[in-house]
Amino acid sequence: MKLARLRIGEWESYGLVEGERVRVIQGSIFGEYAISEASYPLERVKLLPPTRPTSFWAVGLNYAAHIAHQERALDAERIRREAGVFRPWHKGVGCIIGHNDPIVLPPEADYVHYEGELVIVIGRPARRVTPEDARHFILGYTCANDVSGEGSWSKDMSNWRRKGSDTFGPVGPWIETEVDPHRLEIITRLNGREHDRGSTSGMIHDCYATVSGISQFVTLHPGDIILTGAPGAVEPLHPGDVVEIEIPGIGTLRNPVVAEDGGTR
Amino acid sequence: MKLARLRIGEWESYGLVEGERVRVIQGSIFGEYAISEASYPLERVKLLPPTRPTSFWAVGLNYAAHIAHQERALDAERIRREAGVFRPWHKGVGCIIGHNDPIVLPPEADYVHYEGELVIVIGRPARRVTPEDARHFILGYTCANDVSGEGSWSKDMSNWRRKGSDTFGPVGPWIETEVDPHRLEIITRLNGREHDRGSTSGMIHDCYATVSGISQFVTLHPGDIILTGAPGAVEPLHPGDVVEIEIPGIGTLRNPVVAEDGGTR
Repeated sequence: MKLARLRIGEWESYGLVEGERVRVIQGSIFGEYAISEASYPLERVKLLPPTRPTSFWAVGLNYAAHIAHQERALDAERIRREAGVFRPWHKGVGCIIGHNDPIVLPPEADYVHYEGELVIVIGRPARRVTPEDARHFILGYTCANDVSGEGSWSKDMSNWRRKGSDTFGPVGPWIETEVDPHRLEIITRLNGREHDRGSTSGMIHDCYATVSGISQFVTLHPGDIILTGAPGAVEPLHPGDVVEIEIPGIGTLRNPVVAEDGGTR
Repeated sequence: MKLARLRIGEWESYGLVEGERVRVIQGSIFGEYAISEASYPLERVKLLPPTRPTSFWAVGLNYAAHIAHQERALDAERIRREAGVFRPWHKGVGCIIGHNDPIVLPPEADYVHYEGELVIVIGRPARRVTPEDARHFILGYTCANDVSGEGSWSKDMSNWRRKGSDTFGPVGPWIETEVDPHRLEIITRLNGREHDRGSTSGMIHDCYATVSGISQFVTLHPGDIILTGAPGAVEPLHPGDVVEIEIPGIGTLRNPVVAEDGGTR
């Protein structure tokens, strides 16, 4: 089942995506709801980020291939110090944008890259759940682009602007509730060309361990989202680019890239 | 003006604190509101955390005396590497509790201390504001306890559980809108005994620089709160303790400390 959040004119609701159409959902996907007969062509609605989370979590350096890539590209000492440690962090809800919304590059960010990732969407309050029980607290999965500044921002020591600048958190296009999260491909395309392809089977901390791990100390709430890490190589973004994160079985998250100051760099 | 958020029976609202009574506010303190004639004794209402922020920010190591204390007490190399750098981070909204709510120590945290701090409350959306203009985007100030785990948690490399575990974010008791934030004393008491006293005049990054700095890359929203750092020494918390953060001119935030497993340690 594909659950979206959408705006039709001035009006917001959840919706059930069926092929090229979306049926309006009355109520909340985190509580009581009914699927109405009213439907719209997908191309006529604005897809919003699929939830409005209280917290936007991320787990970084969660695939061996990505760690190896980052060691070569960035500060190898920092990467080796952090790799493998279960260290969830807050990307910050303020940076979330939806499908088709522009990623805006601030002029101060001299290098920004994409990171295509699988996202866990929490369905029920979770506190001290075991990895074995974690699946019952997950509503489904979506795609995200963990847009990240490196270069002069790589030594920021917290990800506040490096990964949390406004628009650096594209999420969508919708939540898929019926996939095995550890048997998915993540394909990243830049301007239509495939740049990276990886499998979620390679996660170091899998989705259930991640939900369980965070929930040991911090309650997860319905609608909270968790990035699970980029599987492989990454490439820089420039104004005019279009970046797509496709997870077959879920969907494709597409975002254009623009410069905040209108420049082209 | 002292603005509180309160619960009376099953009903939540904002309120204006006047001496020992609170007058009910109709509407939102971040939009249109009216102060009604209905009032209650303060002791009869439950004070809630004064806002429901989209983001709970913090700026650490923001006073020379606190940096010196932490260098002696903790990992001196890490403290020196991070001190002085403008490095806001997300404490996480999930840990917020209000006045009189218990701080709950997880059994896994072998050392937890208090940090009494001044809190900035954002009043209007702020993006790319200058330090000179920042005061116009601030609604007021309140008190917080930046409860922090060290010991075996001090090498977590993100503050997710060290400073973000459930209940580690007491905030309140209310927002004061008419104080000079850089001429305030912060007094911390443990079980009635004063343990630390510092002045906000010693901030490295003052409140206006902090709001301006974050807003360069991340939009601040009405109700967002920002911790501004502990001024001096800190002491560990144990089950049965009562910790108070008093900022004369604002008020006193008081919280009891309990063990999650009911133990006394």
